[in-house]
Amino acid sequence: MSLVLDAAAQDLLFREARTANSFSDEPVTDEQVQAIYDLVKYGPTAFNQTPLRITLVRSPEARQRLVKHLAEGNQAKTAAAPLVAILSADNEFHEELPHLFPHFPQAKDAFFAERPVREQSALMNAALQAAYFIVGIRAAGLAAGPMTGLDFSGVQKEFLDDDHTPLMVVNIGKPGEGAWFDRSPRLEYDQVVTTV
Amino acid sequence: MSLVLDAAAQDLLFREARTANSFSDEPVTDEQVQAIYDLVKYGPTAFNQTPLRITLVRSPEARQRLVKHLAEGNQAKTAAAPLVAILSADNEFHEELPHLFPHFPQAKDAFFAERPVREQSALMNAALQAAYFIVGIRAAGLAAGPMTGLDFSGVQKEFLDDDHTPLMVVNIGKPGEGAWFDRSPRLEYDQVVTTV
Repeated sequence: MSLVLDAAAQDLLFREARTANSFSDEPVTDEQVQAIYDLVKYGPTAFNQTPLRITLVRSPEARQRLVKHLAEGNQAKTAAAPLVAILSADNEFHEELPHLFPHFPQAKDAFFAERPVREQSALMNAALQAAYFIVGIRAAGLAAGPMTGLDFSGVQKEFLDDDHTPLMVVNIGKPGEGAWFDRSPRLEYDQVVTTV
Repeated sequence: MSLVLDAAAQDLLFREARTANSFSDEPVTDEQVQAIYDLVKYGPTAFNQTPLRITLVRSPEARQRLVKHLAEGNQAKTAAAPLVAILSADNEFHEELPHLFPHFPQAKDAFFAERPVREQSALMNAALQAAYFIVGIRAAGLAAGPMTGLDFSGVQKEFLDDDHTPLMVVNIGKPGEGAWFDRSPRLEYDQVVTTV
């Protein structure tokens, strides 16, 4: 065994965790989301920029406004999910850098004065944090249903602003009946890893 | 406690895990990398496209070729790290989709016929997988040192090809003396999460 992480945790986070397409009625509380955040906020990002922002879509009215921007196949499950989160990247993350990266407070101006540079960095680092967040949802004993089949500019106009770029929408809850397809294959190690 | 994941695993993966800036001499074996891959390959990506590719830079000659493309502050620690991995996105991932996404083998042509669409999707999904990989390194009891302070086009020309976009370089090993700065602050929950 080359892993230190115990087998139950391996199963919970990766081996038995699956992308859920249906959910039970059990609610997902703000306390659960807070516990998830308080765990995964420690995941590393460049310059500790932590640009991920999370919009919890709880009200029925907001849920309806979101669902209409999703691909048809994603609508019913998202309308019915206990909780739905819009994950976005804050392109103005640099404003927080003097606080977030005290080792080198000049980073804000030295590296991130230009908006296109910030957008590229925010997208990459928010994506890392989106993955930590998915792992965190699983750490809470919940299933995640991340989706990119949606009208991104529609979601941005409806829920965000010009400074926030949507990355994905994630359904969250306990899995329901028939929550997943069979596990799809993965690439072999030798198809992914090369050595030089 | 709102989390199901046990406290030791929380510490191993997030709370006590840190980005390392120095490493011990203990080698990182191919068996460890294989165990990491065999765990994190299950992390979700859109259409199960799994575009992440990993180049292990093991030979002293290759390590030297890599180091010269890194920011000065990243050179010495990368030259000395037990293992260094270049993470890249395979922009031709769609060739594997009929195998990887058997539920809808038409996805290859229906969604990914255009190279710019593939590049955007590969970047986002390889970034998710880069985060899973960092979590996996920690699951193996090792420390990760992810870096984006580098000449990306230089690394691409030196080690990859036009179909592979480098995302980051990751040092891997047991932490050495003075491996990290003090933990930097994180944003408060209310700065990150809003509810509608």
